[in-house]
Amino acid sequence: MRTLKSRAVSAALAFLLLATITRPASAQVPKHPLDGLTATEFWAVYDAIKTAGHADARTRYPFITLHEPPKDEVLRWKPGQPFRREALVVVREGPHTFEAIVDVAARKVTSWKEVRDVQPNVIEEEVFGINDDVKANPEWQAAMRRRGITDYDSVICYGTSPGYFGTPEDKQQRVIRVICYDRHGVWEPDGRPIEGLAVQWDANEHKVLRVIDNGIVPVPQGPVNYDIGSVVPRDAPSPLTIQQPQGPGFRVDGHQVSWQKWNFQFRIDRRVGPVISSVRYADGDNLRSILYEASLSEIFVPYMDPSETWYHWTYIDAGEFADGFASALEPGIECPENAVYFEQVFANAHAIPQRRPRAACLFERSSGDIAWRHEGLSGVESRKARELVLRSISVFGNYDYIFDWVFQQNGSIKVEIGATGVDNVKAVTARTAAEDRDGKASAYGRFVGENTVAVDHDHYFSFRLDFDIDGTTNSFVKDKLSVERQPAENPRRSVWVAKPEVARTEEQAKLHMDMAQPAAWRVVNPGVKSPLGYPVGYEIMPGDNAMPLLLPEDYPQRRAGFTDYQLWVTPYRDNERYAAGDYPVQSKGGDGLPAWTSANRPIESTDIVVWYTIGFHHVPRAEDWPVMPTMWHEFALHPVNFFARNPALDLPKQP
Amino acid sequence: MRTLKSRAVSAALAFLLLATITRPASAQVPKHPLDGLTATEFWAVYDAIKTAGHADARTRYPFITLHEPPKDEVLRWKPGQPFRREALVVVREGPHTFEAIVDVAARKVTSWKEVRDVQPNVIEEEVFGINDDVKANPEWQAAMRRRGITDYDSVICYGTSPGYFGTPEDKQQRVIRVICYDRHGVWEPDGRPIEGLAVQWDANEHKVLRVIDNGIVPVPQGPVNYDIGSVVPRDAPSPLTIQQPQGPGFRVDGHQVSWQKWNFQFRIDRRVGPVISSVRYADGDNLRSILYEASLSEIFVPYMDPSETWYHWTYIDAGEFADGFASALEPGIECPENAVYFEQVFANAHAIPQRRPRAACLFERSSGDIAWRHEGLSGVESRKARELVLRSISVFGNYDYIFDWVFQQNGSIKVEIGATGVDNVKAVTARTAAEDRDGKASAYGRFVGENTVAVDHDHYFSFRLDFDIDGTTNSFVKDKLSVERQPAENPRRSVWVAKPEVARTEEQAKLHMDMAQPAAWRVVNPGVKSPLGYPVGYEIMPGDNAMPLLLPEDYPQRRAGFTDYQLWVTPYRDNERYAAGDYPVQSKGGDGLPAWTSANRPIESTDIVVWYTIGFHHVPRAEDWPVMPTMWHEFALHPVNFFARNPALDLPKQP
Repeated sequence: MRTLKSRAVSAALAFLLLATITRPASAQVPKHPLDGLTATEFWAVYDAIKTAGHADARTRYPFITLHEPPKDEVLRWKPGQPFRREALVVVREGPHTFEAIVDVAARKVTSWKEVRDVQPNVIEEEVFGINDDVKANPEWQAAMRRRGITDYDSVICYGTSPGYFGTPEDKQQRVIRVICYDRHGVWEPDGRPIEGLAVQWDANEHKVLRVIDNGIVPVPQGPVNYDIGSVVPRDAPSPLTIQQPQGPGFRVDGHQVSWQKWNFQFRIDRRVGPVISSVRYADGDNLRSILYEASLSEIFVPYMDPSETWYHWTYIDAGEFADGFASALEPGIECPENAVYFEQVFANAHAIPQRRPRAACLFERSSGDIAWRHEGLSGVESRKARELVLRSISVFGNYDYIFDWVFQQNGSIKVEIGATGVDNVKAVTARTAAEDRDGKASAYGRFVGENTVAVDHDHYFSFRLDFDIDGTTNSFVKDKLSVERQPAENPRRSVWVAKPEVARTEEQAKLHMDMAQPAAWRVVNPGVKSPLGYPVGYEIMPGDNAMPLLLPEDYPQRRAGFTDYQLWVTPYRDNERYAAGDYPVQSKGGDGLPAWTSANRPIESTDIVVWYTIGFHHVPRAEDWPVMPTMWHEFALHPVNFFARNPALDLPKQP
Repeated sequence: MRTLKSRAVSAALAFLLLATITRPASAQVPKHPLDGLTATEFWAVYDAIKTAGHADARTRYPFITLHEPPKDEVLRWKPGQPFRREALVVVREGPHTFEAIVDVAARKVTSWKEVRDVQPNVIEEEVFGINDDVKANPEWQAAMRRRGITDYDSVICYGTSPGYFGTPEDKQQRVIRVICYDRHGVWEPDGRPIEGLAVQWDANEHKVLRVIDNGIVPVPQGPVNYDIGSVVPRDAPSPLTIQQPQGPGFRVDGHQVSWQKWNFQFRIDRRVGPVISSVRYADGDNLRSILYEASLSEIFVPYMDPSETWYHWTYIDAGEFADGFASALEPGIECPENAVYFEQVFANAHAIPQRRPRAACLFERSSGDIAWRHEGLSGVESRKARELVLRSISVFGNYDYIFDWVFQQNGSIKVEIGATGVDNVKAVTARTAAEDRDGKASAYGRFVGENTVAVDHDHYFSFRLDFDIDGTTNSFVKDKLSVERQPAENPRRSVWVAKPEVARTEEQAKLHMDMAQPAAWRVVNPGVKSPLGYPVGYEIMPGDNAMPLLLPEDYPQRRAGFTDYQLWVTPYRDNERYAAGDYPVQSKGGDGLPAWTSANRPIESTDIVVWYTIGFHHVPRAEDWPVMPTMWHEFALHPVNFFARNPALDLPKQP
């Protein structure tokens, strides 16, 4: 069905002009204690550190973020009251790492301490700033000459995190692993690896430690461009637009959002992306608390090729880079026409505030879904559903992750993670699988292009869910489903029964998913009962998931120990935020959840935090090349006896 | 945010008037060998059976459906050529069941055979037609008097399938289990069970076999209405409409659909709903086959209360009723404004054609999803996704199931199943969980209202997926992911590797899902290689799933033996369509997949059918009452080396 392409395009453009509303974060003063730092506040941090005499030309600031006020202070706070503003500043001085707390209003450093035996996150200059230095290295140049590459201008060398494997090199230096591509003739380098070559870079001494050359493989030359100029586009389909002529159905005040009985606040953190806080629901006249705070906590992406230039690819992305969030959203393509956009302000490694336009978008979606329905004796009753989506995209190297926080009219919150981007590929001598007779070239991946093998890998996303169900005194309940045999006289031999078990300590809440031994996971407030006598609660609905297959003694698995279980529960501590620890770069294993829970602390009837990890295995396919179709995974938070009845019962007939 | 409600409503109504386009199935002649029977054809069946002298006043036709032409005939057929039209007719004459094949054009019965030891599906008069007869029974009346119920006019008694438990009663009669409700004062009876009472009805002799009364419980009186007049609706939100001013982006010819390189045909079967057939994809100039046919095959919903009036609730819905599809879709609520609707024609138990308006809808959806994207050195490239949804809703008693077949631009097909409707509840004497001190009232469910316990249960949906990947010679491959230990000198201790294994026989393809031992499931054409040398194929991506916990010796589990495994593969046979067998009413167990696969037939390099079952456990909650928010589950079919590259690469920049 051919359509009038030009008309479609101009209609779409008209919408864009009308609809691209951005809320400028930089112009705002913080309105809520959990709002992100503003530009003014970042400058206050800059001044405070300089004034205190802590900085010189070599000083870098790998990470500056809001230092949240104590939770009880935030819970006591009422709109209009003043509130504390502090920044947590990670300061790197050569091999030394310091943590500073800055009182933003007073423009003062109030705490300054060295943190020993850690490596802060990799900063941009360690990724992109080592290109010229590496290229000047004679050993590297020799490796290039062996490959017949003499023009270095189209070669690009990137630094990346090195993992950790207990070698003397790992232990003694800040190591950056450098890999190079020859992007001659194409827009992006990803499909053009200079295979078999890696450089170990000492990021403190700014020198090459070692050039690793384990064999020459020509740079693949297959088509890898995916821009519109490189592809013959299919006909534009019949225009389909979303219109919301009276504007959005939500209200935004600063970063407070209210929509369809939901109330929440959010900020876009540089390390973990959207941090959703003070999530409450207007149940009648009662604004009831569900979550104090929820966000991504960590990402783990281990690759499965054990060869010398590949084994180290075991990224703990959020913590190792801490600058993945957010990528500017393409208006009208990455969010629908009725979206409202939010700017992000963050500081670079020189502590200078930066602006990122369209770092998040917020939109209502009503795509024909049915909230509920029944056809009974009196005909059909049904209601159309609408949901609210807060979207943000992170980019960690080759992967782009879409994070959607979706609020539903039925009291559920869904978290949807879309994985797209470009597969990590290695160059191989065999042209295709047919030529790879001994299977060695593709033993750890699949051909996605000629001489191009995309390497097998996993993705794990840990979410920190600080539930406050009707207050902070919560417990975690497993509803275990188990078979109940029936007596011989009963025609049925078996049923299953759901038996609730309260987890008393952290050890009892380290949980695996297992279809053969199912359990529902619930956070309840044991002190608040529903009208029918149940403790009010929310369930974590895990969705499709995967678990790591790496051996427990393997360093990558120890370093990302949070993936040992799909679910953990801890008592709330303000300094326990990152599932693989605060400093995963070259971490030796055991940090974060394994360390915190080793004390097996009590978690019953107290303020608790749930950590859920969702993951998937990825065996690449030709369809993932040269750019991957988005693959979605999701989990949901689901009211269980929190409401007295279906909270979507009162949806209007014609929405 | 208050909105102008009246304006919103009239805008919505205007859209409805414009957009509700229905394709009248009854007016059409069949255009494709797999089109459903038309009204003219149903009348031909009616005449043929009558003319052959097979029918008298007691004759019923529990099931009349298209008898598909032999597969090779359909595969050879080209548009414009004549094709065979036959009907399969199940005829019930008292206790005797016959299967007839009718040549529709010749109006002749070409085959007539008795099928012994089976019970055909329950028909409407057995559900709704026994009300007066049961109420006239003195024992039933005595049971009602014991309950203080003297006015029978507001009481409604339903027949339902009895399950099978090997009792003499089960073996000797056609049993209908009757349960009664007192719907006094409310629209729907579901929340008003007359507990502890059941009637065994002999559907051949039309008499009460037995009245079961195991104790008096008052009829619950809590609020159960959910119509708009019984609820104070929330304010209508800001209007949000979908506009497609140039009409849909798909083309429909009869029941052939083409959209965005996809081509398929469909019919709405009375027993299994949407049957999608001849699914092909235009890959360049080549219209490539993916599926010959795909549809739901069976549903299993076992309840978990072992008491005398509850143990039998173990529905094998599709086969036991065979009239669940389809419920008329509410325009503008259950499908978006840009949907096109399709009428369904089927025959009732008297073989008389019936029309069901809006039995299916077809619409494009573009809800802001991102087909693919990457932010690289040259900026962001991304494309907006659009998908095509074919929706149909079945109603089996209390549950409404939404079945969406979703075609995507990236070559994937998703099947999404939404479960909504009204929970099955039992009346209990305890008012709430707080009053249920010994836990007996809610041992097998949860309170959802006062004196109202919704009983725990499962849902399983078996799908029959007759893949024809580039032809009929296909194989099934498990890509098993297993740990590969690394030699001591390697810094990595482990990776996983994906090892393909071809299943040679049915036994090797009976598969459980297990997160600890993951495998990818692929159908390939071993004779057609991708440009990179792999066999072309499609993967079954299972999604979130559950497995039954019932003991293997339990009759319900034996009767729904297809749920013993999540995946089965069989060689194609035209008479193997229903996973629990053709006649699940009072079936004794073992029918369908367990029986067919007992021969352990070869399945390598032949025409194969994949059977996938997706399910979930349901422990009800107050939020599921008095009508359940839709709960979605999904699986997907995903090209793996079927295409040479990402098939969505050529999406236009501005859709």
